[in-house]
Amino acid sequence: MTDFTTLSENELKELQVKLQDKYDTYKSQGLKLDMSRGKPSPKQLDLSDEMLDVVSSKDVLKAEDGTDVRNYGGLDGLPETKKFFGEILDVNPSEVLVGGNSSLNLMHDTVSRAMFFGVYGSETPWGKLPKVKFLCPSPGYDRHFAICELFNIEMIVVDMKDDGPDMDQVEKLVKEDDSIKGIWCVPKYSNPDGITYSDEVVDRFAQLEAKANDFRIFWDDAYTVHHLTEQPDQLKNILDACKEAGHPDRVFMFSSTSKITYAGSGIGVLASSENNLNFFKKQISMQTIGPDKVNQLRHIRFFKNVENLKAHMKKHAEIIKPKFDMVLSKLESELGDKDIASWHSPNGGYFISLNTLDDCAKEVVNLAKEAGVTLTGAGATFPYGKDPRNRNIRIAPTFPSLEELEKAMNVLCVCVQLASINKLLSK
Amino acid sequence: MTDFTTLSENELKELQVKLQDKYDTYKSQGLKLDMSRGKPSPKQLDLSDEMLDVVSSKDVLKAEDGTDVRNYGGLDGLPETKKFFGEILDVNPSEVLVGGNSSLNLMHDTVSRAMFFGVYGSETPWGKLPKVKFLCPSPGYDRHFAICELFNIEMIVVDMKDDGPDMDQVEKLVKEDDSIKGIWCVPKYSNPDGITYSDEVVDRFAQLEAKANDFRIFWDDAYTVHHLTEQPDQLKNILDACKEAGHPDRVFMFSSTSKITYAGSGIGVLASSENNLNFFKKQISMQTIGPDKVNQLRHIRFFKNVENLKAHMKKHAEIIKPKFDMVLSKLESELGDKDIASWHSPNGGYFISLNTLDDCAKEVVNLAKEAGVTLTGAGATFPYGKDPRNRNIRIAPTFPSLEELEKAMNVLCVCVQLASINKLLSK
Repeated sequence: MTDFTTLSENELKELQVKLQDKYDTYKSQGLKLDMSRGKPSPKQLDLSDEMLDVVSSKDVLKAEDGTDVRNYGGLDGLPETKKFFGEILDVNPSEVLVGGNSSLNLMHDTVSRAMFFGVYGSETPWGKLPKVKFLCPSPGYDRHFAICELFNIEMIVVDMKDDGPDMDQVEKLVKEDDSIKGIWCVPKYSNPDGITYSDEVVDRFAQLEAKANDFRIFWDDAYTVHHLTEQPDQLKNILDACKEAGHPDRVFMFSSTSKITYAGSGIGVLASSENNLNFFKKQISMQTIGPDKVNQLRHIRFFKNVENLKAHMKKHAEIIKPKFDMVLSKLESELGDKDIASWHSPNGGYFISLNTLDDCAKEVVNLAKEAGVTLTGAGATFPYGKDPRNRNIRIAPTFPSLEELEKAMNVLCVCVQLASINKLLSK
Repeated sequence: MTDFTTLSENELKELQVKLQDKYDTYKSQGLKLDMSRGKPSPKQLDLSDEMLDVVSSKDVLKAEDGTDVRNYGGLDGLPETKKFFGEILDVNPSEVLVGGNSSLNLMHDTVSRAMFFGVYGSETPWGKLPKVKFLCPSPGYDRHFAICELFNIEMIVVDMKDDGPDMDQVEKLVKEDDSIKGIWCVPKYSNPDGITYSDEVVDRFAQLEAKANDFRIFWDDAYTVHHLTEQPDQLKNILDACKEAGHPDRVFMFSSTSKITYAGSGIGVLASSENNLNFFKKQISMQTIGPDKVNQLRHIRFFKNVENLKAHMKKHAEIIKPKFDMVLSKLESELGDKDIASWHSPNGGYFISLNTLDDCAKEVVNLAKEAGVTLTGAGATFPYGKDPRNRNIRIAPTFPSLEELEKAMNVLCVCVQLASINKLLSK
């Protein structure tokens, strides 16, 4: 088949009938497939089941420093947990604060605290200001945007380029407007584009001249070890870059083992300057006596060292790489020559970002839904759920089986073609 | 020995020399004993070690409803967890929201959310009001008061009586002042007095006429199954009482397994009306994808049912009852006939509340500290750390061994006597 945009109206209508036929066949199969959320598959979760066995009633239930992991205490994590995550994130153990099972929770609470108390160095709690704004490189992660909506933080869309956010836009905005207090970033294998920020982008972030002296980068390094290839992307260390640029307190890094061990029972961490962490710890000490240390010990004893964790991540890649390949090969074979869609081919992470013709994404998602294939809602990858070009669709290939995924992609590709023809015919 | 208050100045001075001698001997022993926090002892924690073995790689890692406990999801808890806590707290499973490892965290977040968003039925977020006040029956739990301080909530002391807070004061205050939005209660085996609220007190709470239509009772039922005797105290069901009184949304109940299984790796819960929980769930869904479900399964499979949990609590009592008895018998034998101190003898919970002569508590705590015995800071049981009569000392007997406890109590009793004599001589 050829480029849709070169077809005549009659040719398009002919094709429309054929595709509608195909669509109706799929629809009649009563499919129930889900590509909506970045969830690990059961096989991936199986990889960590032995973690349940390494801390048993027969084991010594003490941390390196003698702490009884069963009792209260350990506000910011066990020494070995801080060391382990420090190595993963290339920061000092003293720059790591260990949380509960959810890095999203740490992000939410960091914003919540900033609203009440400001951040280290703030003159005024953010919530006392007439207006607080965050920059949101988009497409981006819907749950980041949801936190802003919850706290009534105005979101400003910044375009994503192939090497990260459009830094010209970012630089101009933060220099001019002191109500801009933060920016959300997924710097490695970004959600959903799968892009890793270039060294230049990282340096420009570190060197930003911000009008707000308490401007912060929310650096969600969720996919830092989640490679799909043997030639993984490299991300420059933002904390070091910020220190060098004279902005040592600028960045909050977040990460977790949710997509390393168990999605619901992993460990979330916040890494930042000691000034930032000490500022938080005072507040956190009013909130909790400490996170679950038994689960920390479980993780540490399961992995023993970061080399083993990296080997573990290769097993994940073995399971999910074929799924990414399936999605990409379907996109290529079904949509590759038609000039109606474009997509990224990521080296890691959890998503493939598909752009349709303008104004088609909602229709595609609806058509797929009616045929039993659930996708992330169109618009979800933009603040307020509003994709200005209505074209971005986030594909999450990890949870379904390869077989299900093939079926789901067949449906999706027909839906994209149908919506595109409808669009072209309506012109 | 006899009543100190009947002794002459010379007799007191003579006694002072003897006691100082005794104190100096203790001091020279280089003791390092801690009665400051309500922590379970290692032996108590041992009781739950088999909980680590009931969820292993060989087990089916699914909940009753088929949920894979390893993956994301389950915002408010697994069905069996809600059912289990529903039975413990005598509420419907639909009235239970399961959290992470800390009920303190749930309390903190409940206050934090109320400040930002109000509670169900609020006209205005509490944080937007010129002033928010909480009633604080005192002596009470220092960490409750710390949450109020963090959020700049003004605390009003309400006296504790033998059957709970002074309800005449409570009724008068909440009826007159609509800036009073909440009250902290530990209704069973209260911290520190060990008092259980009477049915009348519970009913008066449920029936309160509050000027603020969004007034809430923060009902920290931390010690609901933590009995020390075979004749446990009975606490009337506040949620039912509130429903009957036409205030179904008035109460937030909190509880946890922190002092049932592991202090650092238990399960915290919030129980309340479905209206309240639905209001919270919308906000919590922006904060986390859900709490640790593997740990929920671990608890459920370990206990199987509430009967087993009750049997388990008897094993705790076997360990800690002798410690409470030691403290009480030391108090009785050393201070019982001297008219310088009074204390409660609780049927459960974690504390013994000691009242010295007015203006002696700080000196006692300091003297003990210098002799190597750490107690909860004097004043900690009152808002802002200010005990107006400077007389209350919270004794936490569970963590030290019986041997350590005996030594610590010997020191404490000498300190109380010394401080009392100093006080009597200064008159």
